[in-house]
Amino acid sequence: MATEIKDFSKLCVHTFTTKPWGIEDCVKNYSEAGIRGITIWRNVLENKNLNEVKSLLDDHNMQVVSLCRGGFFPSVNAAKRQAAIDDNLLAIEQAAAIGAPMIVLVCGADGGQSLEKSREQIVEGIQRVLPVAQSAGVKLAIEPLHPMYAGDRSAVNTLKQANDMTALINSPSVGVAVDVYHLWWDEALQSEIKRCAAQKHLFAFHVCDWNVPTLDFLNDRGLMGEGCINIPEIRGWVEGVGFEGFNEVEIFSDKYWAMDQHQYLERIKQAYLTKV
Amino acid sequence: MATEIKDFSKLCVHTFTTKPWGIEDCVKNYSEAGIRGITIWRNVLENKNLNEVKSLLDDHNMQVVSLCRGGFFPSVNAAKRQAAIDDNLLAIEQAAAIGAPMIVLVCGADGGQSLEKSREQIVEGIQRVLPVAQSAGVKLAIEPLHPMYAGDRSAVNTLKQANDMTALINSPSVGVAVDVYHLWWDEALQSEIKRCAAQKHLFAFHVCDWNVPTLDFLNDRGLMGEGCINIPEIRGWVEGVGFEGFNEVEIFSDKYWAMDQHQYLERIKQAYLTKV
Repeated sequence: MATEIKDFSKLCVHTFTTKPWGIEDCVKNYSEAGIRGITIWRNVLENKNLNEVKSLLDDHNMQVVSLCRGGFFPSVNAAKRQAAIDDNLLAIEQAAAIGAPMIVLVCGADGGQSLEKSREQIVEGIQRVLPVAQSAGVKLAIEPLHPMYAGDRSAVNTLKQANDMTALINSPSVGVAVDVYHLWWDEALQSEIKRCAAQKHLFAFHVCDWNVPTLDFLNDRGLMGEGCINIPEIRGWVEGVGFEGFNEVEIFSDKYWAMDQHQYLERIKQAYLTKV
Repeated sequence: MATEIKDFSKLCVHTFTTKPWGIEDCVKNYSEAGIRGITIWRNVLENKNLNEVKSLLDDHNMQVVSLCRGGFFPSVNAAKRQAAIDDNLLAIEQAAAIGAPMIVLVCGADGGQSLEKSREQIVEGIQRVLPVAQSAGVKLAIEPLHPMYAGDRSAVNTLKQANDMTALINSPSVGVAVDVYHLWWDEALQSEIKRCAAQKHLFAFHVCDWNVPTLDFLNDRGLMGEGCINIPEIRGWVEGVGFEGFNEVEIFSDKYWAMDQHQYLERIKQAYLTKV
């Protein structure tokens, strides 16, 4: 059983959840709404002075939970694999600059090669950037993505695969991010949550809901409570193995991006109290 | 390694693949194209005299591989569960009438209850209709569907779950249908193919491809060779454990339904020879 959520002390919102807002609006409006956790997507950092972003975050007493996202390591093309390494090194710099303790990895896939090959390249990529991440004090969280993204976004599609990968890499700096949207359907989820906690690799917990029906492959995620995921049950599993981090709200939704984002943030808060 | 495909003797086409055609066109045109295997979707049987359909099939020397589809057992509503039973009994009658030796089950799911509960109801439903199916000489094939359908179309999302279910039901009349579209991403696929063959439960093999990117949840399946699925590898696994049935082409595609269906059938035949 999950603990009752009584306040917003563990609520984190991803900047992509309120995509119409830039970083300044996100920080100001989350803070005013009593939300102190923020996961920052790299699109809002483009052309920004990261020292100023850091000051903005500090001035509003915001806690950066993660930087989203690194990864996309696999490719049939060696030059693209190198470009991915370079981009992940840049992400580590950015994370360190804004005080993000962790980068979420959307690991990538290339439909032109097998999933096994892509997974090998993911491990290689992580191992190549890991020393730099460790020097910077930045952790890396492998986020398994739903199997519907296996063709192009991630060859890591179950928590078992992410756990296998972290076990292989075997570093306290490399763990996993559990997102209910990607993993709710998997009958092995509870046992794999136990396994990754036992490995001390459970780094992050993301929530939203699976709409029935779902109309778009990317941008039709539901607000918590709207879909068919038993979020409190999964939160109970995560808390049951000792996870004490933030509950991160990560919703991609054309529908919600079209509405007033202040009103949307209030709906997120209500859903957070009753449906997470 | 899969055997080389040299002719169309094991090619079966699903009537839904050429959706613009009714049953008469399907039978006549498949036959003229040298295709003798046909899996018949129930929509083309609506308002038809099934004795006449049977004669049409016999006159063209067509072999009915399956009737598609039964299933959709789970619901939070008991009346709907009973309606599903009734519909499956009707499907068994239809299968027997047209000489289909098997019904493919799209098992169903109800987002209003847990996947575990839906799976229990699937097993109950199959057990209820099984005696009638056995009397009619009709087998039932559980088709695991991709996890992206777990919210509304099937609570059976891996071959492992289908194998668990057939092991539990433990009848020579209940097996599984392996569709590469639904299962290609699963690292346990090869081992579960071995398992279901060992149980003598491997009843059917469906092919198409996973487009990268995929644009629609239902109707953007690719022609074999267009996407990222290694179909020959999976066919090799299936043949390697003794499967000798048809290779069934089941493609839902708004793009292909919009083109001339005779030309499309020729493209299917070419892809069948070189990409399956």
